Parts: sequence; C-alpha cells; structure tokens
Amino acid sequence: MGDHDIWRELGQQLRVDSIRSSAAAGSGHPTSSMSAADLMAVLISKYLHYDFGTPDDPRNDHLIFSKGHASPLLYAIYKAAGAISDDEMLTFRKLGSRIEGHPTPVLPWVDVATGSLGQGLPISVGVAYAGRYFDRIPYRVWTLCGDSEMAEGSMWEAFEAAGFHGLDNLTAIIDVNRLGQTGETMHGWDLDAYVTRARAFGWHAIPINGHDVGEIDTAMAEAVATTGHPTVIVARTEKGHGVAAVANVNGAHGKPLGDPEEAIAELGGIRDISVQVPRPEGSDKPHVFATDGPLNLPAYEIGTKEATRKAYGDALVALGNARGDVVAIDGEVGNSTYSEEFAEAHPDRFVQAYIAEQQMLAYAVGFQVRGWRPFAATFAAFLSRAYDFVRMAAVSRANLVLAGSHAGVSIGEDGPSQMALEDLASMRAVHGSTVLYPSDPNQAAALLAEAADRDGIIFMRTTREKTPVIYQPGEAFPIGGSRVVRSGDDDRVTLVGAGITLHEAIKAADTLAGEGLRVRVIDLYSVKPADVDTLRAAARETQAIVTVEDHLPEGGIGDAVLDALADAPERPVVRKLAVRIMPGSATPAEQLAAAGIDAEHIVAAARELAGARAGAEA
Amino acid sequence: MGDHDIWRELGQQLRVDSIRSSAAAGSGHPTSSMSAADLMAVLISKYLHYDFGTPDDPRNDHLIFSKGHASPLLYAIYKAAGAISDDEMLTFRKLGSRIEGHPTPVLPWVDVATGSLGQGLPISVGVAYAGRYFDRIPYRVWTLCGDSEMAEGSMWEAFEAAGFHGLDNLTAIIDVNRLGQTGETMHGWDLDAYVTRARAFGWHAIPINGHDVGEIDTAMAEAVATTGHPTVIVARTEKGHGVAAVANVNGAHGKPLGDPEEAIAELGGIRDISVQVPRPEGSDKPHVFATDGPLNLPAYEIGTKEATRKAYGDALVALGNARGDVVAIDGEVGNSTYSEEFAEAHPDRFVQAYIAEQQMLAYAVGFQVRGWRPFAATFAAFLSRAYDFVRMAAVSRANLVLAGSHAGVSIGEDGPSQMALEDLASMRAVHGSTVLYPSDPNQAAALLAEAADRDGIIFMRTTREKTPVIYQPGEAFPIGGSRVVRSGDDDRVTLVGAGITLHEAIKAADTLAGEGLRVRVIDLYSVKPADVDTLRAAARETQAIVTVEDHLPEGGIGDAVLDALADAPERPVVRKLAVRIMPGSATPAEQLAAAGIDAEHIVAAARELAGARAGAEA
Repeated sequence: MGDHDIWRELGQQLRVDSIRSSAAAGSGHPTSSMSAADLMAVLISKYLHYDFGTPDDPRNDHLIFSKGHASPLLYAIYKAAGAISDDEMLTFRKLGSRIEGHPTPVLPWVDVATGSLGQGLPISVGVAYAGRYFDRIPYRVWTLCGDSEMAEGSMWEAFEAAGFHGLDNLTAIIDVNRLGQTGETMHGWDLDAYVTRARAFGWHAIPINGHDVGEIDTAMAEAVATTGHPTVIVARTEKGHGVAAVANVNGAHGKPLGDPEEAIAELGGIRDISVQVPRPEGSDKPHVFATDGPLNLPAYEIGTKEATRKAYGDALVALGNARGDVVAIDGEVGNSTYSEEFAEAHPDRFVQAYIAEQQMLAYAVGFQVRGWRPFAATFAAFLSRAYDFVRMAAVSRANLVLAGSHAGVSIGEDGPSQMALEDLASMRAVHGSTVLYPSDPNQAAALLAEAADRDGIIFMRTTREKTPVIYQPGEAFPIGGSRVVRSGDDDRVTLVGAGITLHEAIKAADTLAGEGLRVRVIDLYSVKPADVDTLRAAARETQAIVTVEDHLPEGGIGDAVLDALADAPERPVVRKLAVRIMPGSATPAEQLAAAGIDAEHIVAAARELAGARAGAEA
Repeated sequence: MGDHDIWRELGQQLRVDSIRSSAAAGSGHPTSSMSAADLMAVLISKYLHYDFGTPDDPRNDHLIFSKGHASPLLYAIYKAAGAISDDEMLTFRKLGSRIEGHPTPVLPWVDVATGSLGQGLPISVGVAYAGRYFDRIPYRVWTLCGDSEMAEGSMWEAFEAAGFHGLDNLTAIIDVNRLGQTGETMHGWDLDAYVTRARAFGWHAIPINGHDVGEIDTAMAEAVATTGHPTVIVARTEKGHGVAAVANVNGAHGKPLGDPEEAIAELGGIRDISVQVPRPEGSDKPHVFATDGPLNLPAYEIGTKEATRKAYGDALVALGNARGDVVAIDGEVGNSTYSEEFAEAHPDRFVQAYIAEQQMLAYAVGFQVRGWRPFAATFAAFLSRAYDFVRMAAVSRANLVLAGSHAGVSIGEDGPSQMALEDLASMRAVHGSTVLYPSDPNQAAALLAEAADRDGIIFMRTTREKTPVIYQPGEAFPIGGSRVVRSGDDDRVTLVGAGITLHEAIKAADTLAGEGLRVRVIDLYSVKPADVDTLRAAARETQAIVTVEDHLPEGGIGDAVLDALADAPERPVVRKLAVRIMPGSATPAEQLAAAGIDAEHIVAAARELAGARAGAEA
C-alpha cells in the first residue's frame, strides 16, 4: 500500500478503536473522535516527532488535545503507537484506569489535562513559547481543537498571543465537524469564518477537507514550512464520519454508538496497525540560563515599612538570580505587582501576557510542562478571570506560583472592582493548593523561596499598602506554620490575622494590653495548610478567638481556623471579623474601619468576648 | 460657535474636569479620560439619547464605560449633562461618595459596574440583545472600550456574539491611546489590527482620528445608519491629550497630574458648558411576553427518581409560563442542564451563548439591566470560567440566577475536568450571594421559584444523577431554611448533607438505626444563608456532627456548618467528609466511595464519633 492507503486504513483503525473503547465504557465521545481520525493518522505517521518510550525527551514534539473529549481518539493513537496495549485501551473510564474520561497527566504522554474547552490551545501557546524562547530547541506543538470551543474567548487570547510572538513552531488543527453538543455551532461548515478570523490575528490558515489524507499531508507540510507565523489547519470534517448511523447526525454527541458491532463492520473491521511515529531528530539540548550564585533574598529592616507586593518583586529577582529555571509572567500590571523588577533583571525569562489573565495562566501551565518554574502575577481580583484555568491546572498536576496583589478593601480609593475579597476562598478550594498571605516583607520573601520548591498550585496574596517590617531578615517561615507574635501565660483571647489585618490585630493587642486584657496574636501567614497545632493550643488556652480578615466572611482565614478546630475536643467561641459590606471608595484606613476589620473593631470584639465569658464563668 | 467648536470646547471641559476630580481625590485615571474626551463630547451632544432626569425610561440609550477606569470622564459627562453638581463631582473617591473610583450602579445612570476590563462590552451585547429581541424598542448601546482590554478573550466573545446576532443597535468605540498601564499595547496605534479583527468577526469598523470632532461626527452617523451589523469606531487618540506633560507619555497611567493648575491653564481653563443631551424619541413601549396563568410547578412522585437538573429545566419552563420577564441562557449544554426545555417552550426568550461562559454571564447581567429576570445554566465546573463576571455582577447589584449542573464526583466517568468541586466555595464567597443545593426535584422546583423573586446572585447547584424523590410536591422550602429528615429525642450524632450526599446520609442513618445508633439528618439545601437555628439546635442536642459533601473540604457545606456554629456557646465535634482526593474515572457509586463520602463512610464516621464521645463520657 502507498502512504495514502496506509493513512486511510490507520484512520479507520482509530475510528474503530474509538468506538470499541467507548462501547466498553458505556460512555465517551466516539463521534467527536471519528471526525478527527484522518487528521491524526497523517500527523502521527509523518509529522509528529515523538518517542513514546522516552516521554521526557526534551526534543519530543507535543500533541495536545484541546478538545479533550476526543480522548478515545487519543488513546487509540497511543495504542497504534505501541504506548499502551489494546487491553489497557479498553479499560477506558473504569475505576483505577489511567485511561480516564478526559486526558490527564497520569499518562506520561499527556502534558496537561483537558476537557474544559478552550484551554488546550492557550496552554499550547505556552509550550511553544517555551520552546522558542526558553528551551530554544525546535520541537513543535500540535494542537487538536474543536470547532465548538472556538467560541471561548480564551482561544482568541491564544490566537492573539501566538500571532504576536510569531510562534511558527505551533500548529493548531481545528476539527470543523459542524456539530456541538446540542446542535450546530455558530459557523457550521463555514471554514472561511475561521480562516478569516485566524488570519486577522496573524496566523497562517489553511482550509482543507479533513478526510482527504492528501490534503492533510500537504497542509501539514505547509505548516512545518511556514516561518514567522503559527499555522492553523481548518479542516472540514464530519462528526461520526464513516458510520452512516451517526455521520453528521445531530444528537449523537457524547454517547457510545448504538450498534458498535455494525459500525465496526461498516468501517472494515478491527485492525491492528502499528505506527512508527517519527522520532525526534537532532541532538539539541534545552537552553540553560546562567545563574548568579546562591539565593540571596532581599532584606528589610525592622521598623521600616514596605509592601509585601514589593517584596514579591524583590524576592522574585533573587530567585531568578539563583535559579535559571525561574520564569515570570504578568498581566500588564507589573508596576503594581512588581513583576517589573524581574522583567528588568531577567528580560529573557519574563513574558508580558498583556491584559489576558487566562493566557497568563496558560503560559504558566505550558511553561511548567517543560520543567520551567513559572511565577504569574496580577491583581488578586483579576486571577478570578482565570479561575477555571487554575482549577484545571490542579487536574494537570501543574506546579506553579500565582501572586495576587491589591487584596482586600485596604487598597483604598479604587473601589470594589479592584479588590480581591474572594481569592482566599477560591484558591483554598483548589485541589492540593497552598495559600499564603504574608504579613511582612521578609516573610513574603522567605515564603516565596519556599513556594519555588513546592508542588501544586501555590497562591500568594500580597498587600498594596506598605506595612511595618516586624520580622528579621532570614527568619524561617515554614509553609504550614504560623507565628505567635503576642502571647503570655494569661492570654484570655486569641486574635488571628494575616497580611494587613495582622497589623490591626497587633495594634488591638497593644490597646487591650494597656487595659489589662492579655490577648494572643497569631500570624496565620499560611492559610492553607493552616497551623493546626498552634490554633488548637490557642483554643485550649484562651477563652475566645477573634479572626480578622480583609476578605468576605466565606472561605478565608476565619473558615480556615474553624476547620482547624472542627474536630478538636475543646473549642472556644470564634468570632469572625470580615468584610460583610459592599465597599465603595475611601482611604485604606477608612475602608478597614467601614468594613469592621480595623484595630478598633478587633478591640471591641475581644472586649466583648472576654467579658461575656468572664461573666459566664463568674 | 459652530457645532465643531462647541464640541471641541466641551472636550476640553471634560479633560479639565477629569484633571480636577482626580487632583481633588489624589488618585484616579485622568490621562485615560483625556484620550476619549472628544469622542464623548460629540456622543453626548448629538448621538446619545438619554433623559438624565428619568434614568428608568426604557427608551433611553445606554452608555457603558467598558474602560471603567476612565470614570473621571464619565463623571465629567454627568456634570456637563446636569446630572450631578460640580461639587459632587469633586467628591470623587471620597468616603461615602457615590462618585466612586470606578463606576457602580449606586449612581442611577450607571447600568453596571466596570473596572475589571473586558466586561463592559460583553454586557453591552446583553443590553443590545435585550433591546432587539426582548424589549423590541430602538434604544442604542454605546460602549467606550480601552485598547488594552482588547487583549481579553471576553471582548472577542462579545465581538462574536454581537456579530452573530447582527446587533446594529450596538456601537463600540475603542479609544486607541496606545499606552496601557505599563507600556505600549500589543498593537500600539496600528488601527488596522483592530479593524481587521473586528471585520473578521462580522462588525462594521470605522478607523478615525479620535481627536477630530468632524471625523467622530461622521463615524457616529455612519454607526447609526449601519444596519445588520454592529459598528466599532476605532479611534486613534493620545493618552493625556492636550497636556504636554502627559500627552502620549508612558508612566502617566492611573495617577493625578503633577501640576493640575498648569494643565488646566494649558487646556484653556475651567469651563461650565451645559450639554443638552438629546432626549429619547418616540413612544415605543417595551414588549411584554404573554403569560399562561399562575405558576404551576412540576410535581414528582415520592418513591420515583429524578435528577434535580431535570427539575431545573421543568421548573424553568413553568416559571416562563407564569412570568413574561423570565429569560434563559445556556452554554451549549442545554441537553445536560435541561435548559433545552425552556428553549423549546419559550424560544423567543432563550439565548444560546454557545461555549462562551463569560458571554453567558454578560448576557445575564445585561438582560437584568433592562429588568429581565435571567437564568443562566451550564456545568457548575464551567461557571468557574466566568467567575470574575460573577464577582463583578455582585458589584453591579445584579439580580440573576445561575444553575450549575453536574456537580461533584458523582457525575461518574467523565472525570475531574467536568466535576465542580469548588463551586460552593467560590459562589459562597460572592457578596450577597445565595447558594442553593437541592436534594430532591420537588425541592429544586420550589427553590427555583423562590430564587426568581430574590435579589442578588443566586446559585443553584444541581446533580447529574437521578435521586429518590423524598418530598411532596408543593412543600415549602424557604431559602435560609433546612429540613430535618431524620430525628428523635435520643439522637447522638447529626449528619448534614445536601444534594447527592443527603441520600447517602439517609442511607447511613437507616443503617445506624438498625444498629441502635440514632442519628439526626439535616438537609442543608440552603447552603447560604444557612439555617443557623436548626444547626445550633443539633449542636446542643447531639454529641457530634458529621458533614458530608461532594465538594472539596474548603468553603462548602462543612464550612457553612462551622460558620453557623462559630460563636455558639456549645458546639460538638464536627467531622467534615469531603472530596480530598483527585478523582479519576469511575461509576458514580465508585466515585462516592473512593472520595469517602458514601453511606459506608458516613456510617463509619458516625460510629467513631458516637463511640469516642460515649467512651469519654463513660
């Protein structure tokens, strides 16, 4: 057989295997797999360079299914490439199988989890950017996109970013099968709609018949030969192609075929073609950035004032000096987050994401695919724009650090649109996440250094205002720890704060001490994991706890404290001071007062609780 | 003076007033206001039809500042239009002033809060859609966009949606002042970059010099005259135009001018021009959709099984029958969320948002601007894509209902990308939100009817699986209430669940009852606000509480219970059962077991806690 015949046969095999695995599972997306089978048959036979035996080979290309629901096709590819057995393929969607409903990196050939549409392409841009500007080796990124997901704005953030950077090592393939989950997409088979948009965003675009292996071959060759621009192959296909019962039929999304045996027969039966996927070529080694000696964190003098956001920038520069793998991204607010310091010190390792927070997260996820250690920053409020990307980054087992500045009402005059008041809650509710909220710049620097070595999604909340330096440079602040900054044998109330509110709590403690009311003050800089032992000790040893946070009452510091004490045998009354109003504009001090989280309100709460319990005991 | 001279003078006044208010505040974005002053001068003098004395007049046009940081310009317009006094304008950013740092609807002429970039245009699409298809009256929507925010994917969701629907009552004006917060935008003054993209998305695009009032006049006339397509005016402007110290100077973003007096002199001094903004014309009244008698909610028979997501669809149809103001939107998963039932019953009031969740939220926010009552649905996991829009909707004081289906691991085989496990946390942490999690279809229907009359952001979490009907049709389920579904005088442990886990708790209670261990079971269908009284009674009357939720441990049902008991004088041990693993694929029952939230794990926890305390008491 000639190449075309082999590719056509392989396409049929990929269809048949997609049908088989979905039938075995009793669920799945075979029709969305069948539309793209010919595209993938040609790709893996001739264009993808990948050593399935050595998935960590940096020279490998990257194959990312942005349309993650076409997982049966991906697994059929892995089988054809000899990476998994037919038996394993048929464990699709079963308990304990790594052949999950949507791809995740429990499989070594999967870079990132997909299945939330509109993420695979933006992340691919990140991988391609890393190849071009960090690794500086010529691997290519091939990304299979669905036509439905082209409605996601994040896809256009990706088109914009890849076009802007001229990432000619990236090829997107849009599987235009016309049908979404419930009906026709906005553009149906109007290939020109996609071509025009893609070209407007600076891409080379090639419309083809996605079931003609010759056209596919030509288009992929053209993609590889195109320089200066990323390429998108806009492929007209049929959903369920090859099986009359489901081909181009609405209502056949996301379910196994009604009669898989007949469908397999219609496709010519089961095949067992093995594909020799081309191996990566050349002996290029990834670029390594020079470093500048051991880590030398910035130091701030006790008694001075500095903002933790500034410490973020300073410490990030230090990390970049000491580690060549540290890279940074910002959402066009680098003079607010202080990412600009890293951009100046390490321009080759800084990426401007512009005001596109989803792409910012996607860069981070893509960079860490290649082993880079990304730090991404914007206002904490605007990380909410990329929350689904954060959620999926956890499913991708990604390791990255997010820094959110300008948290809470204490930003002052700008008003509620710029205030993160839900970030602790949303970031705590990410699987395996770490949530840090430093109260002091030396602490922020120390925590950032720890974060650089920690797995998972690490979120650091920083403060706009300058706050007093209360810790010495070089002090240790383990993640999962806390600091007891005021304590004595006769503490009657415990105050728990972090960030801006720790300083209010300290002021309150000093006021109360002047009145003879001893209070303990805990700096809960590690909100997740929280320091359960220290909190439980406070619960045993004091008669009430006041938590105070520049955040909504739900899901933040107060809830972290309650959680730490949930199944403790003893637990005193806990009063949560938090932002229960909708703030407007005002000075930082006025905001803290209006929200009831300043020293005065803490004093009042502590007095009341000490008095109430004292009265009850009397 | 001729019109052009007057407009130029008005433009200068708007600049001067932007400088004055920012100087009085000591912060703000005067330079971002100055670039768009001429555009707005022409708009409010000739094209905007608006009665500032009657902001609720449905015939009014809508003026939305997508670049909300140009608020000094907006307030200068309000002053010029006689809506606010000069004195009030100068309260900009002061405590208690409604002249906030970024616009919010505490001002009656502000439709929605902006300041998180990339939201004003998508919401404008919603308002324009409502005008065309719901209200059916010819008001226009004028939206001032920044060039920096064109990097947000949500802007392209809006371009796609408006182009697709041919919203010729919408005009976007892009203020291409070249400079973002930290430097030049991706496209600088390359107007063609925007024009080409906009045309590719089906818009009529007009590039102009944004400081030439004649060109502005011509472009706006052309926008009004254009039918079948929305229009974008792409205006080349200078940031800080008119004042040499800041004009087209990087680094002058987001701060008052260094020498406001000199700048005002350079602009020709303070003016006090009053603008006669054209009034709305005609006597069109908004369309009213016919209704079909009183509310007749669906009924499900005890002993049968049905999914709460199905009840959502059924009840939404009933609401649509009874109320002409109910409209629905879906993110192209209507056969999963059951929005499809509404789409079929009330096609004129259903909007397909396709897979663009940010635009889906923006439609909802835009619709409620005009008094429509929107219900928007997708998988709960994918609402995370629009989290910033939800956050800002609260700042907009929007009233809308979100339904998130396919919550938790109990969806089964599809795997973690499709599972909402953080939605309760993120939605609880929205100011003024209501979070509902019905356990039964009759309850879901009743709650949806209540949600339709409730202010704020209401989130209803629904379940993919069919669960037993346990309540009678017509029973009342007040928001803020709960149901005690098992109880007795000698309850030793309380189980708290909702949705899928309530049924596991009931099974567990029955098992435990067979062993002689009496447990109370609370259906916490209203997660926020939670039923504090019932939970506190359980805390007093039983020796331990087990919470069980198909959600991460942070910010969900367990934390809501702990919060309700936080400052209660008595509180037993609380054990939180929640999803602490990263799930894979498996059947729903296997998933619940693997996550430790099925009946068996509840039984074990209850036994342990009852035994432990009993032992301690012995």
